[in-house]
Amino acid sequence: MTEVDSAAEQLLSQTILGHLGFTGLDGYPHVIAVWYEYRDGEILVASQPDQFKCRSLRANSRAAFTVSTPGMPYRSTMVAGDASVERLPEARRIEFVGALARRYLGQDVGDRYVETWSRGGKPGDGDLIRIRPRRIGFYSG
Amino acid sequence: MTEVDSAAEQLLSQTILGHLGFTGLDGYPHVIAVWYEYRDGEILVASQPDQFKCRSLRANSRAAFTVSTPGMPYRSTMVAGDASVERLPEARRIEFVGALARRYLGQDVGDRYVETWSRGGKPGDGDLIRIRPRRIGFYSG
Repeated sequence: MTEVDSAAEQLLSQTILGHLGFTGLDGYPHVIAVWYEYRDGEILVASQPDQFKCRSLRANSRAAFTVSTPGMPYRSTMVAGDASVERLPEARRIEFVGALARRYLGQDVGDRYVETWSRGGKPGDGDLIRIRPRRIGFYSG
Repeated sequence: MTEVDSAAEQLLSQTILGHLGFTGLDGYPHVIAVWYEYRDGEILVASQPDQFKCRSLRANSRAAFTVSTPGMPYRSTMVAGDASVERLPEARRIEFVGALARRYLGQDVGDRYVETWSRGGKPGDGDLIRIRPRRIGFYSG
């Protein structure tokens, strides 16, 4: 990873939806909005197991990840990187998605979200998408 | 274009940043935040001429375009389509970017934006990216 601009990294550390870009099994680029965590220089995204995005990234690991402020002042951090997709065992999945839900939704709404999402604590295993940045760009408009 | 879900189209018609996905000349997917207009079933994005995104889309016209609400309730419209890039002559460019700026920033801030951006009314020609949807997906969480 090249030198990371601190403003770019600061934006990655905020609680904003990320937009994950990948090349689909259909050959088209795809962009989806995701919750994520930026930890130890990697972007982590949880998924239901074997979804289209996971199967696509297993076939072609090249990924884009962009985080943008929704209004003025406009700023964007744009990551180009390589993704791996690993199994996320149920217990770690609940912990990770729970932490994301409480961060994005607040404690109370997050708790209710996890309750519904985890189906009585039995959501099963999921997938974890891990993006290792190769280049990080920053836009400030 | 297949049948468009009205909720998906309604979200496309709101004033939210769009996220444009394309395959870069470097072979990586890229995602950038853009102002856009959804008009007559097409997504229109203005650009400075011959930028990386324009050169990339000229080489590979496959594009993704996603619009997501920034918070609860989460909704996303995801477009897969084909993009063309055409020259946008100065006069039409000023008109188009001016309309976008006033829509996204409000009348006063938009006017000031255009004043700075257009360099005394002489920004030169630009490019217009036009995305024709092939498939439109909708997520409501």
